[in-house]
Amino acid sequence: MDKLVIHADPALLPEALLLLQQGTAEYELILPENRAASVLTQAAPDPRFALAEVAFGQPHPDAIAGASKLRWIHVSSSGITRYDTPKFRAEMMRRGIVVTNSASVYNEACAAQAMAFLLAQARLLPAGLASRAANGTPEWTALREGSRTLRDESVLILGYGTIGKRLTEMLVPFGARVSAHRRQARGDEAVPIVSAEELPAALAAADHVVNILPESPETRGFFDAARFAGMKPGAVFHNIGRGATVDQDALFHALTNGPLAAAWLDVTDPEPLPDDHPLRSAANCHITPHTAGGHTGESLTLVRHFLENLARFTLGKPLLDRVM
Amino acid sequence: MDKLVIHADPALLPEALLLLQQGTAEYELILPENRAASVLTQAAPDPRFALAEVAFGQPHPDAIAGASKLRWIHVSSSGITRYDTPKFRAEMMRRGIVVTNSASVYNEACAAQAMAFLLAQARLLPAGLASRAANGTPEWTALREGSRTLRDESVLILGYGTIGKRLTEMLVPFGARVSAHRRQARGDEAVPIVSAEELPAALAAADHVVNILPESPETRGFFDAARFAGMKPGAVFHNIGRGATVDQDALFHALTNGPLAAAWLDVTDPEPLPDDHPLRSAANCHITPHTAGGHTGESLTLVRHFLENLARFTLGKPLLDRVM
Repeated sequence: MDKLVIHADPALLPEALLLLQQGTAEYELILPENRAASVLTQAAPDPRFALAEVAFGQPHPDAIAGASKLRWIHVSSSGITRYDTPKFRAEMMRRGIVVTNSASVYNEACAAQAMAFLLAQARLLPAGLASRAANGTPEWTALREGSRTLRDESVLILGYGTIGKRLTEMLVPFGARVSAHRRQARGDEAVPIVSAEELPAALAAADHVVNILPESPETRGFFDAARFAGMKPGAVFHNIGRGATVDQDALFHALTNGPLAAAWLDVTDPEPLPDDHPLRSAANCHITPHTAGGHTGESLTLVRHFLENLARFTLGKPLLDRVM
Repeated sequence: MDKLVIHADPALLPEALLLLQQGTAEYELILPENRAASVLTQAAPDPRFALAEVAFGQPHPDAIAGASKLRWIHVSSSGITRYDTPKFRAEMMRRGIVVTNSASVYNEACAAQAMAFLLAQARLLPAGLASRAANGTPEWTALREGSRTLRDESVLILGYGTIGKRLTEMLVPFGARVSAHRRQARGDEAVPIVSAEELPAALAAADHVVNILPESPETRGFFDAARFAGMKPGAVFHNIGRGATVDQDALFHALTNGPLAAAWLDVTDPEPLPDDHPLRSAANCHITPHTAGGHTGESLTLVRHFLENLARFTLGKPLLDRVM
């Protein structure tokens, strides 16, 4: 029997690359010369991709179309935007190709980042860390009086999956009221699910809106001028999903003219946001450079997750994080 | 029967002052002309204090010595440093004066602030918010790889009371390993209690040290050069207790020469720390101006807590937050 051919193009730290090589020693591992710059981005085209039965990384849809032996694609990110089209899904189904993603690798860190955002805002850390106010001054009283604890505050999560579930668990001890909106409610969610019809009212009532929507034709520009205008005065908008789900001009308007008190964005469109982008000038807009999924040992975790799925694949067991 | 005489000197927002006046309408309420600038500080001396049977605020020990009718002191802060001496305790016992503090008012906010510090550090928010790194660059990879989730990390709490208990509850969903040190273990703590003998080993093992020690002759300068030197390389020090429990020169040394990765301080000595203080120049030292206990409606919460205790006092019931 011929060796299973695996093509892997993600950016990996040296110890993670070694783990991948050791974990695939019994198979044929193809590592392109020019691998991707990050787990989020695509590598240069590699003619040897046509030989692959298993693809790990961010293969180009055109390359996938030309790889006749392909049976399984393991995407190195949580987002699968570049594959998530009806045409691609139909092609995968027709060719019997299974697609998995790396959601499990990033879920915990993404939920922790969302909690960091929620608490940094609740405790007014940006203003507090910049302040040298003396006890009892008006600036000090305003900081203390403006600080919050999340108790009894409402948090609305859009795009409720594993990250949203973990975020909900993290919010429980704080006494926040969590509800969520997702494309298709499954009935097993730990929080009340808001339907599309109920969404405007839920957005109007939420103290914190946490956007974890994936990018797709339906979600692109989802947070538009009308949705921002309908939010509660003083509400805070958080985005740890994808930048393209937000109309950034509308967000800027909502931050500078109301109703939003602040925004915390880990994702923007494009990334990084240009230095002269209006959102860079809004003091109440706090931006991190798409680091929400990051964590110490991430590169190793990514490879371990792939190897776990590879073991399942070779044994014919169900794969983790299957998306197609 | 003569009316109960209550002396109240805390700084209160107008609506909280009104609530205090309404809630004490059947008693004689003495409000000094010059009330304190904040709930943490002392007001100017008031000769009418000598008439008080109940004192709400931060009365001066000398004034207390001269108030022969005094039966109950309700301190407007969580800390009781200026009263916590063997001499004062003995005097209160001899004169039958009950002393309560306002710990319940600030506990939830203090625990939330500690969680905000822990998560802001875990997610490297100060560096992330300042970065405009593109995906895949060395700066970006370092930020992602340096970010943490608190899972399996050890958190050592010093001064385990209600704040520590709440902080422990908030840490549970993150999978952190929490232990604590307190003066006198009671046996009902939800976490392993570290004895004085075990403390050096616990400090050497902790990823995060959270200092909630009150200020007293025994705790002044508790975190000295030896204790900082014995901490784990890369550990993070948090202080939401009192500034005087830390040797700040030793802290500066530990931040600039190791072993500490960072410090998050809500309290310093003095407050605010002067602009030219070395800790102001350390990029890994993050300081908020004693806002940890602050929260929206704090002034009202403070008065409600006093009025709840006043009702208990007049009915002869046990008082909340009794400290002497």
